[in-house]
Amino acid sequence: MEDSNQFKRTDINELGEFTLIDHLTFDAILKQPSTIKGIGDDAAVIDSGDHFTLVSTDMLVEGIHFDLAYTPLKHLGYKSVIVNLSDIYAMNGIPTQITVSIAISNRFSVEALEELYAGIHLACDLYNVDLVGGDTTSSQKGLIISITAIGEVEKTKVVYRSGANIGDIACVTGSLGGAYLGLQMLEREKQIYQEHPSVQPQLDEHEYLIGRLLKPEARKDAIAYFEENNVIPSSMIDVSDGLSSELFHLARQSGVGFIIDEDMVPIHIDTQKLAIDFGIDPITCALHSGEDYELLFTIKEKDLEAIRMMPDVAIIGEVVSGSEGLHLRTNSGNKHALSAQGWKHFER
Amino acid sequence: MEDSNQFKRTDINELGEFTLIDHLTFDAILKQPSTIKGIGDDAAVIDSGDHFTLVSTDMLVEGIHFDLAYTPLKHLGYKSVIVNLSDIYAMNGIPTQITVSIAISNRFSVEALEELYAGIHLACDLYNVDLVGGDTTSSQKGLIISITAIGEVEKTKVVYRSGANIGDIACVTGSLGGAYLGLQMLEREKQIYQEHPSVQPQLDEHEYLIGRLLKPEARKDAIAYFEENNVIPSSMIDVSDGLSSELFHLARQSGVGFIIDEDMVPIHIDTQKLAIDFGIDPITCALHSGEDYELLFTIKEKDLEAIRMMPDVAIIGEVVSGSEGLHLRTNSGNKHALSAQGWKHFER
Repeated sequence: MEDSNQFKRTDINELGEFTLIDHLTFDAILKQPSTIKGIGDDAAVIDSGDHFTLVSTDMLVEGIHFDLAYTPLKHLGYKSVIVNLSDIYAMNGIPTQITVSIAISNRFSVEALEELYAGIHLACDLYNVDLVGGDTTSSQKGLIISITAIGEVEKTKVVYRSGANIGDIACVTGSLGGAYLGLQMLEREKQIYQEHPSVQPQLDEHEYLIGRLLKPEARKDAIAYFEENNVIPSSMIDVSDGLSSELFHLARQSGVGFIIDEDMVPIHIDTQKLAIDFGIDPITCALHSGEDYELLFTIKEKDLEAIRMMPDVAIIGEVVSGSEGLHLRTNSGNKHALSAQGWKHFER
Repeated sequence: MEDSNQFKRTDINELGEFTLIDHLTFDAILKQPSTIKGIGDDAAVIDSGDHFTLVSTDMLVEGIHFDLAYTPLKHLGYKSVIVNLSDIYAMNGIPTQITVSIAISNRFSVEALEELYAGIHLACDLYNVDLVGGDTTSSQKGLIISITAIGEVEKTKVVYRSGANIGDIACVTGSLGGAYLGLQMLEREKQIYQEHPSVQPQLDEHEYLIGRLLKPEARKDAIAYFEENNVIPSSMIDVSDGLSSELFHLARQSGVGFIIDEDMVPIHIDTQKLAIDFGIDPITCALHSGEDYELLFTIKEKDLEAIRMMPDVAIIGEVVSGSEGLHLRTNSGNKHALSAQGWKHFER
């Protein structure tokens, strides 16, 4: 810490989240021989002797990450667990335990907390994870949820962001852009309701998109498929900030580039329809919106046949040299440079 | 979740923290064979093959757990790590990694965060722990710090709260009550300053007590001594909520009682002096105030000689049958029943 710091004031918004955490943890020297991987992947990797232990943590803050006006507490509890499990799967691991810390203001009742925990317990049951620790405390304002997920992976099967090689094939599970449009829908209905409280929200036809936002699932099925079919992706990351942003992470950490085929990017028909309703190009939505919690991964060419048989996966492009950069190839064969902007920039 | 819940509103203050977390996690069924111990001890215990992995988590909230009016950010970062490491030591383990999640409002500058992280890095260096993950996010109000500590312990050496037996000897490291008086001192000076901003705080002579509050240490020396001298405590817990409260935890989980000798409870001379200044009986202060982060443990009689040679440890009493309850034995031989009230109740 330099003395001159005390005279300087840099607004935290001047640095983005990734730059900030890089900046603050830059000088974190690893001292423990058991620390295989620290900050910079979906989870930390710790040597536990016969396997690796994986650790990932996430904090969700009311008013920043969720709006209780349209987020049922049970869904919130469920989702809080899912976003953490997704990080463990993104290392090709199996989540085994979680801890849950919650800070709450007095405006919450015990019954409200029971709803929240009902969602947490449900996710634990469905994903076969144990709730083993935590903390409940008061907050001055709002609800804050901090979850740490623990998992394990065979040492030879751990998958980092850094393993993609030129000639590998880029794939993504499920479909993209839905959670963002679910959010836009709920924000629009909230605004209408605030202006005209007598108008009932029309949400039935948007069940799919709202489900993508409020009750996402983590792709344990993908990890199970890899295991059954002896596939180890060369690199992997979960899609929390948008496909484009995650491609940049894989590219930077693997030292490669990507060419993505526009018409291969999976977009659900409901997402396409509503995007057009909102005046957004569906591909922009799929590339730059977050919270889908799908898995983006690369495979070696030899695993292509196994992945072609995999349910709910799209082959979206190929890994090229770092000097070629990141591009989207349109139907007409044009190439457009991708930008790394995620969710937050997209909202502006 | 019963339907009738939606018509019921129980204030969260009606349940204490411990009752609340018990209530919310009561139906957490453990499904993973690797989960040895879930909620209810200082840390969760996970089977990692050749050793146990320990996991503990704590959340610190501005305005609830700390007041930035008199808490330097570097000290806060340091202490946030220490309170988590203390939980790992309380299982007779060695901490190896931490993750740090922080939510901050815009009023904090990058330089302020650097100060906070300087304290976090310093604690990591001094306790040989790696910072391996985390999250920085916005908060609507104030600063929230959530830390998870990971540690390890040989399977035969893990110490639970539940292992105390009749005839065992109760011991505590360091001295008690200091952090609470440090807090009272700083609160008093803050109030004087708010009323008379020209009066300079007189804190020099209270360096010890203020240090106990603002820069506590975790007792890694005690764990090292146990290892070197082949002592395995029969039960152990860290003193975060007050000696009396921790004795009740050991008693309940071990199914035993305690007799504690009043004049054996270690109280620093500065604590004694200031307690009297504040009109508090020093023993009340030592029994019922928290945040000392010392270790309370019980040993078998065969280990008594080894513990007599241990630096900075007091033998404070003995383990008796559960039916005898928990008592303080005064100099004059009278026995007073102990109450479980901790820090928060004491403040009323």
